[in-house]
Amino acid sequence: MSSVVTIRSATSQDQDRIWEILEPVLSTGETYALPSNWNKEEALAFWCDENKETFVAECDETILGTYFMKPNGMGGLSHIANCGYITGYKARGRGVASQMCEHSQSKALELGYTAMQYNCVVSTNTGAVRLWQRWGFDIVGTLPKAFNHATQGMVDAYIMYKKLS
Amino acid sequence: MSSVVTIRSATSQDQDRIWEILEPVLSTGETYALPSNWNKEEALAFWCDENKETFVAECDETILGTYFMKPNGMGGLSHIANCGYITGYKARGRGVASQMCEHSQSKALELGYTAMQYNCVVSTNTGAVRLWQRWGFDIVGTLPKAFNHATQGMVDAYIMYKKLS
Repeated sequence: MSSVVTIRSATSQDQDRIWEILEPVLSTGETYALPSNWNKEEALAFWCDENKETFVAECDETILGTYFMKPNGMGGLSHIANCGYITGYKARGRGVASQMCEHSQSKALELGYTAMQYNCVVSTNTGAVRLWQRWGFDIVGTLPKAFNHATQGMVDAYIMYKKLS
Repeated sequence: MSSVVTIRSATSQDQDRIWEILEPVLSTGETYALPSNWNKEEALAFWCDENKETFVAECDETILGTYFMKPNGMGGLSHIANCGYITGYKARGRGVASQMCEHSQSKALELGYTAMQYNCVVSTNTGAVRLWQRWGFDIVGTLPKAFNHATQGMVDAYIMYKKLS
């Protein structure tokens, strides 16, 4: 049994397993600015839509995490990539999010992006904030008490940015 | 002849005149993170799409400016409105943008939003920055050298935010 995590493009065969990763995280309403009551079809329509590249992190045919990449804007901002990453609860602590972040930066450069931006890193999600900072992302903005956290009420959200090339 | 500017919801009858406002501004690539080479259909498909409320500022049956409003996010950010405003070149200096900004804040409250966010105020667009600041918007973030300005190269872009209620 290998313990190597590989990251590859998602296929339509992965949808059930991607939903298994998304559902418990989205339903908390604590870390993602996405509806906590989305059903499987709504969540997958967003996560795997045709304007995004969607990837899965896999180990021994088990999907441990997933991320998407898309342009964060158009025109003068079209060189900036935006990503969203979710690691399955069972796979926490294995560096999967870090590996997806690294992979996404390489992939972004390959696709011609020169920067990456996260538009809503919830300030209470301290593990994510620290991880992105370790990867060289700066907090370039704070939306004050802007994120309606399911259990903590209105909390700050950060905009994080990294120049890639 | 009245000189009162009124703001109302756009209709399909306004499309040609909205394009006359958008085209010269978008084509410069200096102030909007939208493709500078969009044709009429592409620009109107964006500006007047079904997920936005689109308004026009009108005086004596001439359209002087237009703005849209949409949610800036989903889930925990769905209470934040996002708007884009464009005043026609011929109507500059008459306070049309200011009037549209005021109108949009009232409309946002009416629609249940509690805050408003602009995601890309180009730093070189000093008139806009000052106007939004006068209306109580704060610069809550700076995307460093992130906007590819058609004539000035990479310039800072601001994220501006105002709590409405």
